[in-house]
Amino acid sequence: MNYRSIINILGWITGIEGAFMLLPLLCALVYGERTGIFFALCAAGCFLACLGLTRVKRRKDRFYAREGYVTVALAWIVMSLIGALPFTLSGEIPNYLDAVFETVSGFTTTGASILDDVEALSHCMLFWRSFTHWVGGMGVLVFVLAILPLAGGGSSFALMQAESPGPSVSKLVPHLKATARNLYTIYTGLTVTQIILMCLGGMPLFDSLCIAFGTAGTGGFGVLADSCAAYSTYLQVVITVFMVLFGINFEFFFLCTLRRFREAGKMEEVRWYLLIFVGATLFVGLDVFFKQGGGLLYDLQQSAFQVASVMTTTGFSTCDFDQWPMFARMLLVTIMFSGACAGSTGGGLKVSRILLYAKAGIREARALIQPRRVSAVRLNGSSVERSVLQGAMMFLACYLGIYVVSMLLLALDCEDFTTCFTAVAATINNIGPGLAQVGPACNYGFLSPLSKLTLIFDMLAGRLEVFPMLILLFPSTWKRK
Amino acid sequence: MNYRSIINILGWITGIEGAFMLLPLLCALVYGERTGIFFALCAAGCFLACLGLTRVKRRKDRFYAREGYVTVALAWIVMSLIGALPFTLSGEIPNYLDAVFETVSGFTTTGASILDDVEALSHCMLFWRSFTHWVGGMGVLVFVLAILPLAGGGSSFALMQAESPGPSVSKLVPHLKATARNLYTIYTGLTVTQIILMCLGGMPLFDSLCIAFGTAGTGGFGVLADSCAAYSTYLQVVITVFMVLFGINFEFFFLCTLRRFREAGKMEEVRWYLLIFVGATLFVGLDVFFKQGGGLLYDLQQSAFQVASVMTTTGFSTCDFDQWPMFARMLLVTIMFSGACAGSTGGGLKVSRILLYAKAGIREARALIQPRRVSAVRLNGSSVERSVLQGAMMFLACYLGIYVVSMLLLALDCEDFTTCFTAVAATINNIGPGLAQVGPACNYGFLSPLSKLTLIFDMLAGRLEVFPMLILLFPSTWKRK
Repeated sequence: MNYRSIINILGWITGIEGAFMLLPLLCALVYGERTGIFFALCAAGCFLACLGLTRVKRRKDRFYAREGYVTVALAWIVMSLIGALPFTLSGEIPNYLDAVFETVSGFTTTGASILDDVEALSHCMLFWRSFTHWVGGMGVLVFVLAILPLAGGGSSFALMQAESPGPSVSKLVPHLKATARNLYTIYTGLTVTQIILMCLGGMPLFDSLCIAFGTAGTGGFGVLADSCAAYSTYLQVVITVFMVLFGINFEFFFLCTLRRFREAGKMEEVRWYLLIFVGATLFVGLDVFFKQGGGLLYDLQQSAFQVASVMTTTGFSTCDFDQWPMFARMLLVTIMFSGACAGSTGGGLKVSRILLYAKAGIREARALIQPRRVSAVRLNGSSVERSVLQGAMMFLACYLGIYVVSMLLLALDCEDFTTCFTAVAATINNIGPGLAQVGPACNYGFLSPLSKLTLIFDMLAGRLEVFPMLILLFPSTWKRK
Repeated sequence: MNYRSIINILGWITGIEGAFMLLPLLCALVYGERTGIFFALCAAGCFLACLGLTRVKRRKDRFYAREGYVTVALAWIVMSLIGALPFTLSGEIPNYLDAVFETVSGFTTTGASILDDVEALSHCMLFWRSFTHWVGGMGVLVFVLAILPLAGGGSSFALMQAESPGPSVSKLVPHLKATARNLYTIYTGLTVTQIILMCLGGMPLFDSLCIAFGTAGTGGFGVLADSCAAYSTYLQVVITVFMVLFGINFEFFFLCTLRRFREAGKMEEVRWYLLIFVGATLFVGLDVFFKQGGGLLYDLQQSAFQVASVMTTTGFSTCDFDQWPMFARMLLVTIMFSGACAGSTGGGLKVSRILLYAKAGIREARALIQPRRVSAVRLNGSSVERSVLQGAMMFLACYLGIYVVSMLLLALDCEDFTTCFTAVAATINNIGPGLAQVGPACNYGFLSPLSKLTLIFDMLAGRLEVFPMLILLFPSTWKRK
């Protein structure tokens, strides 16, 4: 294991997190809040640590996939441990484990909260909480790639591969640094557009910033106790549209900026993603309309918001969908698993993986009918490599394994099956609210420390696509050769 | 499609079912029950149909895998439709759909019932209900293979492949007819042993027969309202032991009869199966003991019974385990999915598939750490062929697909998540009781016709390992070339 390089990179990460903390400090100054001092303290600590750790020089040789995965996993853990400090130091979330849960939930863009009363937090804490979504959405290491001279020994590719969501690293990769910068430009551009549109709709700037961070990262932390229920229909529609946009594969936007619209329009995953969104919105909306009344248009708008929120794994809500009819709830649980597109900020299994599973399953059944017809699984018009398909299947096996173990651990101190099942679904898919005791109107504060640790692991495993976190648990990872 | 051969084989199946119906007729004569007349009528009808259909001569050429799968699926459907007639004609289950549900549940060895009061049925109906378990457990077509001259054109192998449970057809296959006879000898021998042991424990002969049929087929229909709760501890222990035995791969017993004990002892799946049984019994027993009191030995005995019942997918119960603590319930739900060994009469995903998934997942994670080390997945000491592994993974994808669609259909008229989730789990894994509204103390009678049809499909899909039922739904299956 190339420890020196790992420590060096962790040093840089710490420094960058220190820089990020200057923003909530600024926010505290604007609102004249004393709790801002803790951000100043933490930022100073980060800079000192950065200075110390980056003195350990990187060894440019021997930075392989193994080091990449371990670095990514450790980076996210370290970031969360540091990011939780201001909450606990200021006493606004007195329990450090709770603060870590909240911060992991932030960075992994889950949006699951342990807070009974969000509105009791000071502005700078609320800002930091939402800002972690924005940082975590695109991935901190992509950010590092964009601005730091990290090349050499294949480390950049190893890092990128370990952090980017989806079954295979996209075609955009060859020019890593340029790609990372492009991604951040699109990301920032969309975020700013959303902020402007929401301000025009009468939302205060502070709320706009926080909600836009939550939307962009597909996170889901809001600033009001009832999430987005209090906002006007216009604002809810804007948020819906941007949730859907941030769930789209960024390659799509990238191709659009290059005016390669035909190629963009041919992306199979994006087409299926939009189709599932429209289909689920109709089914959920009609189910609510027929079983619980209300206006058809209103129900469809509410349905669109909730479906977009759950499918993109954002986790905002405008109503307590745990009170909806079972079919609507079941459909929401189903799209919790399909998730958003690969290469977006969203979580879940990703639409492209679902497509792979469905196509491979159908091919297998076809092969039984006509054994002599050999056909490959095709996605986006080209045939999928066997190793990608195998990787996607193994991903499913590991994902289900973690799922089952997590449910068993949760069952040790939670007496409701729906709660156990959807708590794991909502965290491993990085959504936020589940059903029953962890529904949109409730929070995760009542769980035992063991359950919280389990869900922290699940959130990280979900955001980092299982393998980096799994590899940490293998003894052979830590062996010297 | 080779329709002539399919019709011919369906004719034989009908005839055999008619012969099977003579047993409940005998039972009716013993107890002097008038409802026996309906078995006589149905048997007569079956023999007539058999005479007619078997006049359609088989074409020995062109009987491929496709024909095999379609024949198996249709055979099970026809058997169930005929088997349900006596229940409805006699008026003991007035609704024909309910009767079909009960019969499919019987033949697929599920044991899910729509009956409020089992004890209201006449003896001959109870006997027929339990006897369907015994017939379905080993597979009717294996029985056909054992006694009929069906060879030619590879039809026997295609049928065997389509009906036998597990990821790959076992090594015993080469001498199909001899194998089928051997399997039935072992099956009958074990059943008779159990009947004798239970009679020695004071159980009436009629109960012994029915319970032994339910155990052998890993079905789960009992003759008393509270399943097995009223039986003595001795009887419960005997049933526990035989449930575990019938969940073991029959190759194990076959090797034992040949005195190849060393080979039998090396079967990895059997060892893991027993390990999971012992481990789950301890965990469940201790959880119940610590959280709900009772005697330690009593709790462990109850735990062993319930674990054996759920893991082998039998579905008997000696207590309402829906009242147990959540961890115990969650563990039971988990082993609902692992199921019994391949090549046994049990259902579920099968222990060998779980082993394949786990090993393949671990190998994939290892490959990320050490990309240059190529290693194959090994089971029972030899490396697993790529096609078997791929087939097992595609099975998982299709299984999960059917699972999700079924849950959505159930959610249309059932308002509880736990009920929807465990109803599908209990039927697609051929277990019987689930949790909440379909728990051991309840039944499936309250569901809508659509939900019942869905669960009927799930039971058949579970028993026939998904693909035969799935293939029926493909339009290309029915196309002429």
